[in-house]
Amino acid sequence: MQSELYLLNCWYGLAWSTELDDGALLARKVLGNSLVVFRDKEGRPAALRDRCSHRMAPLSMGKLKDGVVECAYHGMQYDGSGRCVHYPFGPVPARAVVEHYAVVERDKMIWIWPGNPELADSSLIPDYHFHNNDDAEDDWVVFGYTNVKADYRLEIDNLMDLSHAEYLHATSFGGRGFITNHGRYQVRDLGNEIHSNWWMPAIDLVHPGTRQPIGVQADHFLDMRWNAPSNMRLQVGFLPQGVHADREDAPRDDLPGQFSAHIITPEDEGSCHYFWSADRPKGSVGFVGGMDKEMGRKIFKVAFEIEDKPMLEAVAANMHKGFWEEKPLILPNDVGGIRARRRLAKLIREEQEPAGAEAVSSEALIQMTPSIS
Amino acid sequence: MQSELYLLNCWYGLAWSTELDDGALLARKVLGNSLVVFRDKEGRPAALRDRCSHRMAPLSMGKLKDGVVECAYHGMQYDGSGRCVHYPFGPVPARAVVEHYAVVERDKMIWIWPGNPELADSSLIPDYHFHNNDDAEDDWVVFGYTNVKADYRLEIDNLMDLSHAEYLHATSFGGRGFITNHGRYQVRDLGNEIHSNWWMPAIDLVHPGTRQPIGVQADHFLDMRWNAPSNMRLQVGFLPQGVHADREDAPRDDLPGQFSAHIITPEDEGSCHYFWSADRPKGSVGFVGGMDKEMGRKIFKVAFEIEDKPMLEAVAANMHKGFWEEKPLILPNDVGGIRARRRLAKLIREEQEPAGAEAVSSEALIQMTPSIS
Amino acid sequence: MQSELYLLNCWYGLAWSTELDDGALLARKVLGNSLVVFRDKEGRPAALRDRCSHRMAPLSMGKLKDGVVECAYHGMQYDGSGRCVHYPFGPVPARAVVEHYAVVERDKMIWIWPGNPELADSSLIPDYHFHNNDDAEDDWVVFGYTNVKADYRLEIDNLMDLSHAEYLHATSFGGRGFITNHGRYQVRDLGNEIHSNWWMPAIDLVHPGTRQPIGVQADHFLDMRWNAPSNMRLQVGFLPQGVHADREDAPRDDLPGQFSAHIITPEDEGSCHYFWSADRPKGSVGFVGGMDKEMGRKIFKVAFEIEDKPMLEAVAANMHKGFWEEKPLILPNDVGGIRARRRLAKLIREEQEPAGAEAVSSEALIQMTPSIS
Repeated sequence: MQSELYLLNCWYGLAWSTELDDGALLARKVLGNSLVVFRDKEGRPAALRDRCSHRMAPLSMGKLKDGVVECAYHGMQYDGSGRCVHYPFGPVPARAVVEHYAVVERDKMIWIWPGNPELADSSLIPDYHFHNNDDAEDDWVVFGYTNVKADYRLEIDNLMDLSHAEYLHATSFGGRGFITNHGRYQVRDLGNEIHSNWWMPAIDLVHPGTRQPIGVQADHFLDMRWNAPSNMRLQVGFLPQGVHADREDAPRDDLPGQFSAHIITPEDEGSCHYFWSADRPKGSVGFVGGMDKEMGRKIFKVAFEIEDKPMLEAVAANMHKGFWEEKPLILPNDVGGIRARRRLAKLIREEQEPAGAEAVSSEALIQMTPSIS
Repeated sequence: MQSELYLLNCWYGLAWSTELDDGALLARKVLGNSLVVFRDKEGRPAALRDRCSHRMAPLSMGKLKDGVVECAYHGMQYDGSGRCVHYPFGPVPARAVVEHYAVVERDKMIWIWPGNPELADSSLIPDYHFHNNDDAEDDWVVFGYTNVKADYRLEIDNLMDLSHAEYLHATSFGGRGFITNHGRYQVRDLGNEIHSNWWMPAIDLVHPGTRQPIGVQADHFLDMRWNAPSNMRLQVGFLPQGVHADREDAPRDDLPGQFSAHIITPEDEGSCHYFWSADRPKGSVGFVGGMDKEMGRKIFKVAFEIEDKPMLEAVAANMHKGFWEEKPLILPNDVGGIRARRRLAKLIREEQEPAGAEAVSSEALIQMTPSIS
Repeated sequence: MQSELYLLNCWYGLAWSTELDDGALLARKVLGNSLVVFRDKEGRPAALRDRCSHRMAPLSMGKLKDGVVECAYHGMQYDGSGRCVHYPFGPVPARAVVEHYAVVERDKMIWIWPGNPELADSSLIPDYHFHNNDDAEDDWVVFGYTNVKADYRLEIDNLMDLSHAEYLHATSFGGRGFITNHGRYQVRDLGNEIHSNWWMPAIDLVHPGTRQPIGVQADHFLDMRWNAPSNMRLQVGFLPQGVHADREDAPRDDLPGQFSAHIITPEDEGSCHYFWSADRPKGSVGFVGGMDKEMGRKIFKVAFEIEDKPMLEAVAANMHKGFWEEKPLILPNDVGGIRARRRLAKLIREEQEPAGAEAVSSEALIQMTPSIS
């Protein structure tokens, strides 16, 4: 794959593991390339260019037979490496080969490395081990997928500034004034990993149904982790008030909370795949932990499909130039998102101009309020 | 706003006054620009660019709160001048301003001046005072809106040659042979105002239901007034036969008739807004005046949406070059429309090349049958 | 008409004769040109540019009155030669003429010659005389039409390699292994006519319902005839086993069989008209001939609309460059289709560069398995 828009030597989410169950031949476009994804004879994930070498038929229109893809047009069969293993009307033609991609299965996700396969190091995949707790006692995980007709970086921006929950998610997650009235914004910059966090001490917990205070205070936090290019994880915590006050400026992912994945993969210029998940909320404060799996699935689906998606698509439709050319107003809460955006741009530049041409980008000239991290 | 397609320093219809009732945040694109239209605290109309200064969210997705627009994304609020008056997560940022436009409310219409606001002179708005008679005793006015996927000048052309009523409107307004058999075409050219009229003496009135003659003759006229760029008014009259014969070549708008507005505003290249209205037919000849308000609304809607709109959109889809490059056949009845088209082109040229470069346009070379005005 | 994509001095199918019954004004785009097709006063087919000379209205929106087309906009009337014969509001304008095309009716099809009408020689139309047997005793013909959003040459390729019937048509015509297990592929190249045939000796006939062998053997053949640019005819035969063994390498269209037309006409770049027909299967082997007319219509419709069309449209959507630039794998069964493709490209080149510039095309360099014809 080649592109001036995307980082190539890195891991992107390609499909949830469950999408390949039941012998599926999954058609999915990533970074502008149409792929067919399936499990081979040994159950390992495979991704091929979705195009038969003979007559350009999409292989995803065919059948998966014992881990081999059979083209629906003239019956040519390919294994997981893209090699033709059967041609019904004569010997297997030597040139009948379809391009294949490096893929790895980890934490319930099929990951793809679109760049040089020799550089594909699976230890670089960010940690989402909570995904493996779906079958654990007293826990559950929901997995979801939403297609968004917007540049993938708008989805990253959205998630890196969760203050929008007070307005856009007023009927699902937010609108309770926790961020507005108590929020302290924090950015922790670790290079290709950036944390964009809110610490909200001494909030008054409210009843999830009536939204009335229940007479209990808590220290609340929203910790968003971004790993380049576009793999994110959120931890939502409610702590007994004052008990962990020393953690205001320290990592908190050893504390109980609800983890959720937000894995964004460019589909094409102007659209992206949004893979999201969430486990059972944990903690011993007020009602936390009382949400059941179906309620969890529903509230996330509402938030991401009914609230975020139309807004991101409207923003994308409202942009007629590049992000910086549109001259957005950069506010203090945008620091995490802006840093991620610039880091990603720098990585793409370095990948495409490896000789280290360090020209100052126009981005460096945009005025930005400094972070409080 | 800047454009090579449109006259900017002039008034266009933006919305009917009633479209802003009930606290509406109206999204409307004019001349290629997306706007949000609403009433401010004092009830005055306001038009802003439909894009929050922060993250490009369409403001029309938000809420109108006491005459102030609140963005649905992060809660930023703007007043009718486009100034940010509230930001929930910190002080109001100085650069948080949204572009606003000069608008005026007159005769039940919100008018917009897309050019230099210092030149916006509301005395230049053409007269549609009959719109104010909707509540008057023995009168009514219907207001309608139709979106047409065609260049706005095709809609002007259509209205400036009403001979099409005999064919395209055979099942609504026309098809009775009044123009075909009795019509005398007249053009009165007053510069940026052009009248394209039909005088039809001694027609046999027909029953509106049976379409059979009722034994009464009348002098009938259709007087269409165009004001640059695209604001039109039609008067339809039925006079007792012979009584006003001296008015064949004179203005007739002091005589009784039915007035209707035809206000055309470019939405974008290739589409336009068609705001139409009509009051109760007046006069003492035959059945004239017997039409009730709901029948009036229905017949106009049929004529403009079911008859005109598909034809204009089909013509637009049939054009692969500019109007003149398509080499249309110019006939005597086209004189009014062609004059309006040329006048408008001249005004746009003059606005864009104010140094008065008087190059002869290729339009001047098109052969045209002279008018009988 | 002018185009770099199409051969112009040749016959294309424009409409089935039955499409002009009942006074139809048929709108059809061919080779990128919008036409209106109708029968004139004498019942002869006529094809005009679908655009009134006055205001560019599609004439197909109008009415056919005694073999004359009346424009729906202002009532201008045109005869089959494109000459204006009536204008309701004045004398017929001399310049009111619409472009007309050379058309001929033959074998239930209206044929169009888009190039120089002086070269239009109706003796060049390929033979489809079986179409005239629809009313014959013990015979029937079904006529169908399918619009395909794919380059017309992909439809030709599809028909010239019927091995796809074993996979793509497994639930309609094929999937019985006749080609896979018994097929001998033959190409007969007659210049601008190419035959792409399968001879399948000693197949075991199966019951059409149960698909189980019935204990009868037959010699089966599929003979596809292509005439430049894109007019094809298929003969499907089942012969008593061994009786006509001498015909394996000889023409067979004097033998009984089912004939079907496959007439492909470019609509526009990226879409085509597929006119198909079929008569009653003939022969005395097993169940052959038992298919009734409605079953014939149904099975063809399924095969061409439900099976072929989605595949061809998916292939077209999967192509981002020209056919040869996509580097398809050319296999032995593709010989007929590749020869037709090259012949057609050569004819287009010769038509457009008549001085005989015989530059070697890049096509000539593509490696191709030789035919066994």
